[in-house]
Amino acid sequence: MRELLDAVADGTLSPEQAEAELNGYVTGEAGRFDAARQSRRGIPEAILAEGKSDAQVVALAETALETTDRALLTRVNDDQIDALRTALAESVPDATIERRGTTVRVLGPDFDQPELEATVGIVTAGTVDKPVADEAEIVCADAGATIDRVDDVGVAALSRTLDQVERFRDADVLIVAAGREGALPTVIAGLVDTPVIAVPVSSGYGHGGDGEAALAGLLQSCTVLSVVNIDAGFVAGAQAILIARAIHGS
Amino acid sequence: MRELLDAVADGTLSPEQAEAELNGYVTGEAGRFDAARQSRRGIPEAILAEGKSDAQVVALAETALETTDRALLTRVNDDQIDALRTALAESVPDATIERRGTTVRVLGPDFDQPELEATVGIVTAGTVDKPVADEAEIVCADAGATIDRVDDVGVAALSRTLDQVERFRDADVLIVAAGREGALPTVIAGLVDTPVIAVPVSSGYGHGGDGEAALAGLLQSCTVLSVVNIDAGFVAGAQAILIARAIHGS
Amino acid sequence: MRELLDAVADGTLSPEQAEAELNGYVTGEAGRFDAARQSRRGIPEAILAEGKSDAQVVALAETALETTDRALLTRVNDDQIDALRTALAESVPDATIERRGTTVRVLGPDFDQPELEATVGIVTAGTVDKPVADEAEIVCADAGATIDRVDDVGVAALSRTLDQVERFRDADVLIVAAGREGALPTVIAGLVDTPVIAVPVSSGYGHGGDGEAALAGLLQSCTVLSVVNIDAGFVAGAQAILIARAIHGS
Amino acid sequence: MRELLDAVADGTLSPEQAEAELNGYVTGEAGRFDAARQSRRGIPEAILAEGKSDAQVVALAETALETTDRALLTRVNDDQIDALRTALAESVPDATIERRGTTVRVLGPDFDQPELEATVGIVTAGTVDKPVADEAEIVCADAGATIDRVDDVGVAALSRTLDQVERFRDADVLIVAAGREGALPTVIAGLVDTPVIAVPVSSGYGHGGDGEAALAGLLQSCTVLSVVNIDAGFVAGAQAILIARAIHGS
Amino acid sequence: MRELLDAVADGTLSPEQAEAELNGYVTGEAGRFDAARQSRRGIPEAILAEGKSDAQVVALAETALETTDRALLTRVNDDQIDALRTALAESVPDATIERRGTTVRVLGPDFDQPELEATVGIVTAGTVDKPVADEAEIVCADAGATIDRVDDVGVAALSRTLDQVERFRDADVLIVAAGREGALPTVIAGLVDTPVIAVPVSSGYGHGGDGEAALAGLLQSCTVLSVVNIDAGFVAGAQAILIARAIHGS
Amino acid sequence: MRELLDAVADGTLSPEQAEAELNGYVTGEAGRFDAARQSRRGIPEAILAEGKSDAQVVALAETALETTDRALLTRVNDDQIDALRTALAESVPDATIERRGTTVRVLGPDFDQPELEATVGIVTAGTVDKPVADEAEIVCADAGATIDRVDDVGVAALSRTLDQVERFRDADVLIVAAGREGALPTVIAGLVDTPVIAVPVSSGYGHGGDGEAALAGLLQSCTVLSVVNIDAGFVAGAQAILIARAIHGS
Amino acid sequence: MRELLDAVADGTLSPEQAEAELNGYVTGEAGRFDAARQSRRGIPEAILAEGKSDAQVVALAETALETTDRALLTRVNDDQIDALRTALAESVPDATIERRGTTVRVLGPDFDQPELEATVGIVTAGTVDKPVADEAEIVCADAGATIDRVDDVGVAALSRTLDQVERFRDADVLIVAAGREGALPTVIAGLVDTPVIAVPVSSGYGHGGDGEAALAGLLQSCTVLSVVNIDAGFVAGAQAILIARAIHGS
Amino acid sequence: MRELLDAVADGTLSPEQAEAELNGYVTGEAGRFDAARQSRRGIPEAILAEGKSDAQVVALAETALETTDRALLTRVNDDQIDALRTALAESVPDATIERRGTTVRVLGPDFDQPELEATVGIVTAGTVDKPVADEAEIVCADAGATIDRVDDVGVAALSRTLDQVERFRDADVLIVAAGREGALPTVIAGLVDTPVIAVPVSSGYGHGGDGEAALAGLLQSCTVLSVVNIDAGFVAGAQAILIARAIHGS
Repeated sequence: MRELLDAVADGTLSPEQAEAELNGYVTGEAGRFDAARQSRRGIPEAILAEGKSDAQVVALAETALETTDRALLTRVNDDQIDALRTALAESVPDATIERRGTTVRVLGPDFDQPELEATVGIVTAGTVDKPVADEAEIVCADAGATIDRVDDVGVAALSRTLDQVERFRDADVLIVAAGREGALPTVIAGLVDTPVIAVPVSSGYGHGGDGEAALAGLLQSCTVLSVVNIDAGFVAGAQAILIARAIHGS
Repeated sequence: MRELLDAVADGTLSPEQAEAELNGYVTGEAGRFDAARQSRRGIPEAILAEGKSDAQVVALAETALETTDRALLTRVNDDQIDALRTALAESVPDATIERRGTTVRVLGPDFDQPELEATVGIVTAGTVDKPVADEAEIVCADAGATIDRVDDVGVAALSRTLDQVERFRDADVLIVAAGREGALPTVIAGLVDTPVIAVPVSSGYGHGGDGEAALAGLLQSCTVLSVVNIDAGFVAGAQAILIARAIHGS
Repeated sequence: MRELLDAVADGTLSPEQAEAELNGYVTGEAGRFDAARQSRRGIPEAILAEGKSDAQVVALAETALETTDRALLTRVNDDQIDALRTALAESVPDATIERRGTTVRVLGPDFDQPELEATVGIVTAGTVDKPVADEAEIVCADAGATIDRVDDVGVAALSRTLDQVERFRDADVLIVAAGREGALPTVIAGLVDTPVIAVPVSSGYGHGGDGEAALAGLLQSCTVLSVVNIDAGFVAGAQAILIARAIHGS
Repeated sequence: MRELLDAVADGTLSPEQAEAELNGYVTGEAGRFDAARQSRRGIPEAILAEGKSDAQVVALAETALETTDRALLTRVNDDQIDALRTALAESVPDATIERRGTTVRVLGPDFDQPELEATVGIVTAGTVDKPVADEAEIVCADAGATIDRVDDVGVAALSRTLDQVERFRDADVLIVAAGREGALPTVIAGLVDTPVIAVPVSSGYGHGGDGEAALAGLLQSCTVLSVVNIDAGFVAGAQAILIARAIHGS
Repeated sequence: MRELLDAVADGTLSPEQAEAELNGYVTGEAGRFDAARQSRRGIPEAILAEGKSDAQVVALAETALETTDRALLTRVNDDQIDALRTALAESVPDATIERRGTTVRVLGPDFDQPELEATVGIVTAGTVDKPVADEAEIVCADAGATIDRVDDVGVAALSRTLDQVERFRDADVLIVAAGREGALPTVIAGLVDTPVIAVPVSSGYGHGGDGEAALAGLLQSCTVLSVVNIDAGFVAGAQAILIARAIHGS
Repeated sequence: MRELLDAVADGTLSPEQAEAELNGYVTGEAGRFDAARQSRRGIPEAILAEGKSDAQVVALAETALETTDRALLTRVNDDQIDALRTALAESVPDATIERRGTTVRVLGPDFDQPELEATVGIVTAGTVDKPVADEAEIVCADAGATIDRVDDVGVAALSRTLDQVERFRDADVLIVAAGREGALPTVIAGLVDTPVIAVPVSSGYGHGGDGEAALAGLLQSCTVLSVVNIDAGFVAGAQAILIARAIHGS
Repeated sequence: MRELLDAVADGTLSPEQAEAELNGYVTGEAGRFDAARQSRRGIPEAILAEGKSDAQVVALAETALETTDRALLTRVNDDQIDALRTALAESVPDATIERRGTTVRVLGPDFDQPELEATVGIVTAGTVDKPVADEAEIVCADAGATIDRVDDVGVAALSRTLDQVERFRDADVLIVAAGREGALPTVIAGLVDTPVIAVPVSSGYGHGGDGEAALAGLLQSCTVLSVVNIDAGFVAGAQAILIARAIHGS
Repeated sequence: MRELLDAVADGTLSPEQAEAELNGYVTGEAGRFDAARQSRRGIPEAILAEGKSDAQVVALAETALETTDRALLTRVNDDQIDALRTALAESVPDATIERRGTTVRVLGPDFDQPELEATVGIVTAGTVDKPVADEAEIVCADAGATIDRVDDVGVAALSRTLDQVERFRDADVLIVAAGREGALPTVIAGLVDTPVIAVPVSSGYGHGGDGEAALAGLLQSCTVLSVVNIDAGFVAGAQAILIARAIHGS
């Protein structure tokens, strides 16, 4: 404790870092950031940008960078990304910003990329499922896993699906994203003994649109799989990483 | 008109038959029966037994027999069937009673079985879908169609499905019944160019149970098919017959 | 196989066409296109533009044109159509673009219009149902069927409906689109022995709006008909073509 | 006031009747009965038997008889009716008990049947709608109106409906009960200028069953009508009486 | 018939008017208009502007004016009204345009305002209910009824409600519009013997918002009333007129 | 700690009581009982009997008696109560069993009835709301509060409600239970400045039945009140006690 | 009465103030304002700006200021606030305008800030819950209560929650706002004996989004708490004040 | 192939076993059994008894025993278990029948219990969650995993939860079953880095009952977890086994 305070006093530790080490969380102007989540939970706290102001997003990202050398943001819109770029150019000019659809990962200069000797298969049924899969992919890549991405193998043309079964079998864990009627995860899970995490996607229109048909169908699936919420690519990716890390012990 | 009344007067025509020919419907004690539906619509009026008293079911069946020499009843419970057997033993002793699950078909002695040179494929995903498929089958058989019944080919074990594709292709029209997530009709419709009528089945439990997940998934299907209500085997069978008859012109 | 590769090598076949013939699908930059669907399924894969970027829509349309000489697009917005026109003016300058509401059909110079000796009746209850019927109509016209379009015959003024019964009877198959309470398909299906495919339309407001009342009512219809999802004009048209083709064997 | 108390004191008025005249309601052992509703509201308080114990039903009926010489009970089950008969045989032996389905009307010996010079048309689509229509009918008959009951004219056989249009036009007010897709009230209301009160009925199965499809369709009706809750025959009958009484001023 | 054609030939009757008299409806470029609805149904066809293009709205209004000298439009937006004003300034320059919120009534120069000796009470719970009540009011005024409008008497301050009971009693029929929990129509209907038509309004937020709580509560009302769909001011007004006309026989 | 173990050793403390004091909870054969809830939370843990076997209910009640000298059980059915009586006659023969509808309170011989100088008003709209109010009442009585129970004052006869306003004002906190449209808590909360806790009750039928209309209406209430779940009389009573105790500090 | 009229006559009382004292409400151009609510109900009428025009919002605020020297407005958008500022600069130039998110409080120069010796704890789970908590806070501050605001203590990092338990215990009443799965109010209510009012917040996406999951979870909470509607910060704040005032008797 | 047929011919292999090895599935009188699922999918096909007749359950269990020496049955009712015991006493007298709630496991005499060096933690919030957890437990035990079962640690008494955190951390994978508001899996998943599979349980009443609140809350969880359908203990157990086997490679 004394040590920490000394470090703060002599400037080798910021107050935020000290609070993070003492409490596990940091109180910034836009809310508390759970800096200890990575070590406690195995996955970092992601900042859900949706519903937050530009200033709140920037403040939370800076707190994350300050205390954990990395920030993960999901459902970021264009204005928020611009605000983030502008602010970081000033505050953390040597940060690296990676964007994949609406998901953003910012790495501080001292970020130490972990390694994870595991392959996560990420599969989509169609074009509109890709942004959701991207969200999962960036989380898995952040954890150092190998990604095997297989796009556009929906069951309307079953041979597209069957052609890839070997790749599905080779993954340690599979994330399968599908909208509309959401049949793809069920079909794949019937063919392999890899654990499948299914992500319903909010495509479709009319009755059962917005992903509700896919979600209900996946919960009713006659095969074994588990499910995350509609469009919850981040959660699927993080759950895959927890499983992959249990398998490969990193 | 005069002819009809003369026939009633001399007893060669019952008043019910006369009313049926004049109006197209007959007024019995349990309601009006649409005796002209067969000729106008191509399929007979079926008597939905659910929610009716035993006496009402018997009265409607007798009216149907009286005017069209045949009665089709759906969702009949055991008590209603017993009441029907007892009553008909008295009133129409030479009637034939066929039962398939909760569906019943009664043929009067003068019933003239039609012929229909068409094959209706009727497919189920699992054991619990069979009573619904039975309901469709009895309607199609009543119309004289050939039935190709394929049971228990749900997608959890996809090879069971793929093994039957040729039979699916050989049918003139396909009825596919599936509960839970209802993926089977989508998978089949992606493989053949036969028109597919999908019947969601009220199996399953929890969220999306009672057939709602299957219905929503079928309406969202990424292939081309049309849908009837949950458990509506009769409607699927009748629609298949309308299509089959259009094809084979009987 | 060798032949194909030779053709690619000497440029008489594009790599896309070769992949399409080998696999049945083509992998473009915006996803896989199911080029074999027309021959396997009897109807072409339509590109659902909704939820896709302009670039994805253009890329998929070009892949479709490349491999099947025709592209069908549904739920296209104005920006996407503009992007398509601009891109095709460059890449396939002799393509023909037909637009009907939000549905677009692009024909390459070598497209061979099929013939189908069948009449599809397409009926609407009111003005707001027309765009959905248009979507069905363009699919049926694409397949070469004769269209008998009857607009604005909703049951609020029943004589408008009854005046057209003969036309309904003359069709090989009927598509009936109706929003609000969706009574029209039920009334028509009670009067004719033509197979009826009902399309609920997302008109109406308040409880049961967005087409849900119409959908529920059609699933509960006391006559025989089958249903597609709310606003699913394309699916209704395609299902009608599968039936019409079964009837007339083209 | 003094007069009332004197009458109670000398036994010509029961305490219940005195409370009813003073407060407008009576407090019995099973709850308060709104004895003044008939005069204030034009229709008597009906006792909803569903969810009440036999003893509560009997107590409320006796309070109603005591203070208004008549009791109306809806949704009464067989046990409750038996309990009522047994109790009244003792307490009000000269009461008359009328039963129509699950609706019961008990008349005390001094009940003075009102007259209402108006005709209420009560129409059903099918056999299962009859108990709901019965509930409406008993309320209208209780008020002294003439009833024109037309059963079994559902739109699946439209000629059954059209044959009765003149009777629909001749009524002062129409109650139309229909389950399944509930199209009948819409069709009738499109043909006549009589006010139509529509009652959705809880028939049907699958999606939109339990009367929900009918209710939603009636709220979306493209004609003019007003609606009561699913199976609410009593409310429809009472509303018809309020209208009929406004018309004929009794 | 000949007479009609002669009148068309010599220009004293437009083809639209002739079609309207022969068929009861007119086919314009934007759909059929039910010109006979006023005489058959007692209330004119209203043009629902929502979901129609400006051109369709103008064309339907012009057809209505042409054949019935009056057009009623509901849910009209500002652009549609502007388009209407511009078009009519040209085509029917002496038409009168009345606007009340989103409801518009256009009178041709020959329109003959009917008289109806009846009072319709129109009541709102709060400020946000007013546009819905306006829609009802314009329909009732169009039919010539006297309107007694009582605004802003929601039950949160019950004395506001109770102060107006006499006015509620004096009306021939009452329309009561209320959003949120929709308690006002129930409270009023418990106090008077006037028929009450309740209109749930799409105010409120969170669970039961968009008028669904008010609708459900009104269907469950422990008093007698009938209901129209959420925000369906036009339907409530038209139903009130049918009742008022039955009462006063105009 | 040592003291506790000595007391167990010499039998003045049962192992259950010792575990309860050490951990705050006791592990019985039917699950853990939260013996410390009374002191931590101010209200005892109630045993929800619904969904538990007779044996589980008995075991949990005995654990509660053992450690806190009192057991509160809700939603107990007749079989469970019989089992409880039988078991306690053996195990705790001097226990007192109080039953109010489906709610049961068992007092051990050493139970020390607390006092709470506060009045909780408990109000019902109609007869069917009484069992839910009973559940609240037994909790409040258990805490020693004075109960002012006012039954059967639903708004269909508003004078019944208004007659009791003074009693509503005199309570420290009000619990108002109402089914159907649930208007009563809104009307009362508009008239008094006492905090109102509203309990929707699962009466009613059709759309919005099972208490859903009442719940939605209460959440949308235009007055200030807070809500508990449908039929959650226990929760309402416990929340009232927390408030009453805060007021009167016992 | 005479006194009041004299005061109006000599200008010491405005007509609005006179109406407010006589009737309890004032009729302005935008509706009636319930001026007596503060004294009758203990909390002022808040003006819900959502769904009202700028002019209506201004008129109602001015009426509130005129009669009660203070106006509270909720769900105010930027345009409405600008209109309010502009109008008040003219009409009540010495008014003070306080804004907190979408909540606005305007104080007239004669407003007499009440005192309330009570502490309301206001707690949020995350950043997006803050505007809802702000709405509650402004109501509580308006009543003169002390606010203890604790932000950002969601259960994903449980130590953040547990660190604040003492503050939760010290409040007289707690308002806890939480979106997503809404677990925080349940966890807090399990730890303290303070009454908890839970506010579900409309954050989250996919199934159960818009606050519905949080609302359902809070209604099902296994601890004791009461609930207000989704995002209903104002109602929670007002209910807290009613309780706080009952406790501290101001 | 020949070998197989020889084995059938000489009786060392039953026809069912032969079909199972050839096709992967066996066709019995009650449907096809997916005998190859264990090897293909890593988990055996479970027989869902719900909705099947006693005879079907027995036939499927016998087929499973015949071909894989073990049968797993879920949602078995008492009659079905009795039928099974009776039938097996005859057909496979040396079979062992294990029952856990509604889940049954039958082992043939040659069954070879697998070993799996992994620990699955199975946690319940309360007594009513136990049968669902039992279903998961029997699947995991069947696969040879070590089970660490922790019951009755719901968050209403948070110390019960926190006391067990070390055990949660020590498991390879966690299954957490919770009904009502379903907060327990979220709280646990926030404390450990073990993968958590959440099972919502159909306890609770009123709004969000039947497990819907728990399901929605788990899908919205602010921590990382994946979900199976309401009461789907079997699926959770099987998914846990797939993960455990990936970890420990058995």
